[in-house]
Amino acid sequence: MKIAIDAMGGDHAPKEIVLGVNKAIQEFKDVEILLYGVESQINQYLQADPRVQVIHTDEVITGSDEPVKAVRRKKNASMVLMAQAVANGEADACISAGNTGALMASGLFIVGRIEGIERPALAPTLPTIDGKGFVMLDLGANAEAKPEHLVQYAIMGSIYANKVRGINNPRVGLLNIGTEEKKGNELTKKAFELLKEVDINFVGNIESRDLLNGPADVVVTDGFTGNMVLKSIEGTASSVFSLLKKTLTSSFKSKIAALLVKSDLLELKNMMDYSEYGGAGLFGIKAPVIKAHGSSNANALYNAVRQAREMVQHDVTKTIKDFIN
Amino acid sequence: MKIAIDAMGGDHAPKEIVLGVNKAIQEFKDVEILLYGVESQINQYLQADPRVQVIHTDEVITGSDEPVKAVRRKKNASMVLMAQAVANGEADACISAGNTGALMASGLFIVGRIEGIERPALAPTLPTIDGKGFVMLDLGANAEAKPEHLVQYAIMGSIYANKVRGINNPRVGLLNIGTEEKKGNELTKKAFELLKEVDINFVGNIESRDLLNGPADVVVTDGFTGNMVLKSIEGTASSVFSLLKKTLTSSFKSKIAALLVKSDLLELKNMMDYSEYGGAGLFGIKAPVIKAHGSSNANALYNAVRQAREMVQHDVTKTIKDFIN
Repeated sequence: MKIAIDAMGGDHAPKEIVLGVNKAIQEFKDVEILLYGVESQINQYLQADPRVQVIHTDEVITGSDEPVKAVRRKKNASMVLMAQAVANGEADACISAGNTGALMASGLFIVGRIEGIERPALAPTLPTIDGKGFVMLDLGANAEAKPEHLVQYAIMGSIYANKVRGINNPRVGLLNIGTEEKKGNELTKKAFELLKEVDINFVGNIESRDLLNGPADVVVTDGFTGNMVLKSIEGTASSVFSLLKKTLTSSFKSKIAALLVKSDLLELKNMMDYSEYGGAGLFGIKAPVIKAHGSSNANALYNAVRQAREMVQHDVTKTIKDFIN
Repeated sequence: MKIAIDAMGGDHAPKEIVLGVNKAIQEFKDVEILLYGVESQINQYLQADPRVQVIHTDEVITGSDEPVKAVRRKKNASMVLMAQAVANGEADACISAGNTGALMASGLFIVGRIEGIERPALAPTLPTIDGKGFVMLDLGANAEAKPEHLVQYAIMGSIYANKVRGINNPRVGLLNIGTEEKKGNELTKKAFELLKEVDINFVGNIESRDLLNGPADVVVTDGFTGNMVLKSIEGTASSVFSLLKKTLTSSFKSKIAALLVKSDLLELKNMMDYSEYGGAGLFGIKAPVIKAHGSSNANALYNAVRQAREMVQHDVTKTIKDFIN
């Protein structure tokens, strides 16, 4: 299979992207990679391999570009060429760690929606305390959602959790402000009714305070709420860790303590680390489109390749299409 | 001034409620308290004082009662009698640590809305890393909100932050999924436009990841999102602390470290503690109605009394009324 990758997207591009490609090519013998970006910069880090083809382009979409405009105007941007390779059938999936909005626009306008899917959804796998993680969507592809969209998110998430994460009969929960059936706003109340009727393992409402305990394998919500909750979790974890760091360097005694538990604390911090879980899938697009985290290192990019590969191998797109239509 | 208190609400009632009353009576010489609940139980803990009057009732609204129904049917419940004391003018403010929904219904139906306020809002003061805290509303009084409601929340929060928290020209932020003006859903986009026109210190959009850094003194959002975000913060902090505890008891070495930093960690945990900040005000009601946290201890209840007292002293209700009308 062929995977198209934007070498120029993300905070550590192209270095970490290319290092991740090197690792993926070694690991996955059935994968060929089309790598889009500034050839001279890419070649500084690339281990030449017949399964990697570099396609040179000078144009890049930056983090500050207005997404839709950038995708329309920067016709030779590495991200745009990458998406076109998928649209043309030259590649089976694509990955970028660049501008999230621009990648969503590239997926939507260049690769295109699966017939029958009304809205694509951004679906990362988030960490849980037990290390198993869960898929959550939509985390911001659409600021507004209708109850029917949440149902499609649930179906797509369920198929992904089953096919790629290997979970049998994945539990699907609806993010809500209470666990009782009648709780919530108009959107969640109607979505609850619809979700009961679909052929998935719907386990009811999930509260945001329980997310890290892994109460479901798939959690659906509208993109506005999902984005809010994700950033609340990230922000709180990061604040607590920085307070902890301050505490552990505040006195001689605490510095000794810090030395004693340094490796344990690092492990603890890694449990909250996204890079092990790959990128966020843009579900509902005609081929796998993966948004790797903006701060992706080589390992995160490698895991995104693994994820794209498994989505292609297990034909996630076709399974979603067949379920919906 | 007189403050009516529901002695039977909360996980540790009536003991901690009464102990909090004892402390408040000692501290605030200008406060008289009307205490509603089972007299024999209250008297076990109460330090008799001429400024505390116990009004006996056997009826109690529990956490599992359906809020509106309970308030209508349990006419002699401690919470209902407490709210009636305010409605009758016998008390200037009221406090309960009981069923949140029932307290909101009591405020709305018994005490009544301020004329011109369309929706009351639940407004706790949340902790920040620097220890200053901020007021956030609505945290769940209404699952749906219109842009105009967010504007009223902003005005009420601003007045409270100024009058009770002593903040000059308090910064008011709008919780949103991005900091740029055009970001968000229909609700936040319209609210942004309206907030620019009001005579408050509107500082623009605030992302949920930054909340604990204290980017504003008042943060407004709809009750659904607010509730989600609050529970995400609580859940994440609690998860990280329990992982930390597990880490610090996992080996002999880490146990020694834990002993060395025990007091520092406790202090860290206390920084995230709500009880220092009093209860959540139900803003927009004709008199101060305070929801103390369900797990309130004596200190939390004492701080809720202090908060109610300051709201009465600084005439927050009248200031809101004058601003709105």
